[in-house]
Amino acid sequence: MRRVLVLGGGFGGLAVCRELRGFRGEVTLVDRQNHHVFQPLLYQVATAGLAGSDIAQPLRTILRDQPNTTVRMGTVTAVDLGRREVLTAELAEPLRYDRLVIALGVVTGWRGRPEWSRHALALKTLADATGIRARILGAFERAECSADPGERARLMTIAVVGGGPTGVEVAGACRELARFALRGEFRTIHSGDARVLLVEAGERLLPSFSARLSEEARRALVEMGVEVRLQSLVTDMGSGWLELGGSGAAGGTEGGRRVEVETIVWAAGVQAPEVTRTLGVELDRPGRIRVLPDLSIPGHPEAFAIGDIASAVDARGVAVPALAPAAVQAARHVARVILEEEEIGPRAPELRPAFRYRDRGIMATIGRSRAVFQSGRIELGGLVAWLGWLFIHLLALVDLRSKLAVLLQWVYAYVAYRPGARIIYRRGEDGGPGGP
Amino acid sequence: MRRVLVLGGGFGGLAVCRELRGFRGEVTLVDRQNHHVFQPLLYQVATAGLAGSDIAQPLRTILRDQPNTTVRMGTVTAVDLGRREVLTAELAEPLRYDRLVIALGVVTGWRGRPEWSRHALALKTLADATGIRARILGAFERAECSADPGERARLMTIAVVGGGPTGVEVAGACRELARFALRGEFRTIHSGDARVLLVEAGERLLPSFSARLSEEARRALVEMGVEVRLQSLVTDMGSGWLELGGSGAAGGTEGGRRVEVETIVWAAGVQAPEVTRTLGVELDRPGRIRVLPDLSIPGHPEAFAIGDIASAVDARGVAVPALAPAAVQAARHVARVILEEEEIGPRAPELRPAFRYRDRGIMATIGRSRAVFQSGRIELGGLVAWLGWLFIHLLALVDLRSKLAVLLQWVYAYVAYRPGARIIYRRGEDGGPGGP
Repeated sequence: MRRVLVLGGGFGGLAVCRELRGFRGEVTLVDRQNHHVFQPLLYQVATAGLAGSDIAQPLRTILRDQPNTTVRMGTVTAVDLGRREVLTAELAEPLRYDRLVIALGVVTGWRGRPEWSRHALALKTLADATGIRARILGAFERAECSADPGERARLMTIAVVGGGPTGVEVAGACRELARFALRGEFRTIHSGDARVLLVEAGERLLPSFSARLSEEARRALVEMGVEVRLQSLVTDMGSGWLELGGSGAAGGTEGGRRVEVETIVWAAGVQAPEVTRTLGVELDRPGRIRVLPDLSIPGHPEAFAIGDIASAVDARGVAVPALAPAAVQAARHVARVILEEEEIGPRAPELRPAFRYRDRGIMATIGRSRAVFQSGRIELGGLVAWLGWLFIHLLALVDLRSKLAVLLQWVYAYVAYRPGARIIYRRGEDGGPGGP
Repeated sequence: MRRVLVLGGGFGGLAVCRELRGFRGEVTLVDRQNHHVFQPLLYQVATAGLAGSDIAQPLRTILRDQPNTTVRMGTVTAVDLGRREVLTAELAEPLRYDRLVIALGVVTGWRGRPEWSRHALALKTLADATGIRARILGAFERAECSADPGERARLMTIAVVGGGPTGVEVAGACRELARFALRGEFRTIHSGDARVLLVEAGERLLPSFSARLSEEARRALVEMGVEVRLQSLVTDMGSGWLELGGSGAAGGTEGGRRVEVETIVWAAGVQAPEVTRTLGVELDRPGRIRVLPDLSIPGHPEAFAIGDIASAVDARGVAVPALAPAAVQAARHVARVILEEEEIGPRAPELRPAFRYRDRGIMATIGRSRAVFQSGRIELGGLVAWLGWLFIHLLALVDLRSKLAVLLQWVYAYVAYRPGARIIYRRGEDGGPGGP
């Protein structure tokens, strides 16, 4: 039990490392990025409200004062639970462990249509976010220069697929970008004419919230000018178009199923990363690792899975949701088990305490000065929820510099109606490798 | 004279547009980026001190309150002075003009060895800067994981080619990044062991400054641990190595000419962009447009060239230097000529006032709390020059938001010895187009 290996530097993996700061062995954190990303604000990077570095912090910096912890940048390609070894794409040697915590999160799921990744833009990484930003802003630039009204309309259409919190937040922010931030900056187009479609297969937006808050979110988006299409399924897409099916598909002004659209943002599903298949253990349908109530992997009491990559049912039979607070709580649980067993020796999984998830509430923001919040029977909407959202997210940012930087950008953007990160990155053009 | 076309949204082009805000015709600004970059701080983006959006601002936002001005994003491919037309890669129609101002700046020059662009990193665009940042930080990550001492040493070596202000600033900032910002964050390497070489062909650094300030800069860099190689020429380079010639080449600890180096930053020359060849007018050796004393292009009194792309001699016979303040002064001169002739009708170039360049001084910063400044006979070094540098650059930033954001990052970095933008961007990995 001397070597703890943590895979993934998201909310869960990072929390495990922090909780293990008193551990008298070696802790190694592996991530394919050099930084932790504050995922809840990623949509603001995509919609030009924040710079990438405002919401990201190097993992090394966060963990520098923990001498027992080493950070390695590497992409995990295989986990051999039998030999207790992890392989990475970059490192020649396998990483060996006595205790393993898998916290690799999820990747975008394409609902069995991987070819759609060529046309739609995912939103999981900082690079994804700046890619979406460049696409949206670039489309407005081209629309300004286009003489063809049809092409102009297509360039100024954004479709967001998926009506969960990410989809709702992106759609709201896109509409505000067009309505306020870009207002008055173009000469041949009216940026406020931009169409934003939000496509959801189910009967309502934000299905994890109450029906009342779902309806409040829908109404707020419609008031902002977002075209919400419920019970609509994406049946096909290509370069510059999207085809909708389902009972809500015909609700649009086209009267039909095909939408001409330049930018398609895909927030309609996630799946576990490929690497879970190398484990040789039971996975659920989206490929997540089924864990025992103590969060260990069946048959491997030394290995745990937490966060979005795990499929867990807690002590009271509640399915643990894929939320940052749940990942952090699971991380604390696993770290406590590891620290305890460092003292008392290993136990069988059934003798360990079972994980108990505490619901702290869920929230989503809908543009400038509106949000929805729900915790148990408490439901909040409107300005109060939005101020709460601002406050909680600012507090949760990992370090002081990020807090100050984000606060500054938010205050500025709010007062000036002008987000501050409207930069289109292009690859270097005079021969340098360029391309951030 | 109703249509003024300005090519390039750098210091010169932007200043022309601003000066023409009262012009009673159409002004069109064309740039291949959607943003103006504050070039003097680009090296801080490359060395992780600032985020790209801290020093960049959309051109549309800057010019939104000038209804006579249109911004178009496009890459200029040809200028036909005879037909008064400009072609771009993106726009189907040529752009026609009555008055033309060429302010396209310069691109990196490879001294006749274009293949070196595959190995060395230029520093002209935001994408270049984030590319350099990713290379340097990525090399430290790989060094931490490497067991081979030779490879580790190579990964931790940075060569900066060119001893002008950019080279001096980059070399100093790289050394501080290794010495302070990364200190204590690695477990198997000591980031302070990183070697930074500054290679200059001439006898001294900062040749445009006095010999005394050159020597002060050299001494300060050496104290910081930069290996300064004067009278050294890069004779060849490849993947992971650099070959030096010249009398200073043998001065290194290798006792030889070959340096194993992971990161090569190229700040050793610029040249005019290819598009100047389409003009059919006289160019100087680096391809710059030779202009008359009124800054118009010989034979084309309706066309002007300003900034780094122009080779100009002012009213007193002084060669106009390639500096931001000179470009802004030239812009004001050209705008005044255009506005005057809108009233009094066109004049021959020799009847127009000749441009007079006013030397406001030159400065370069050498890491934390040191800089050099020179204006006429006034020479300043050390802390005073550095505080002046901070002040002037902060004032010169284009808008309030950038000023606040940069000030915040600087104060934080200075107090905490921790720059705030240490993010390695990688291309999206789960199928999305990614890549900012």
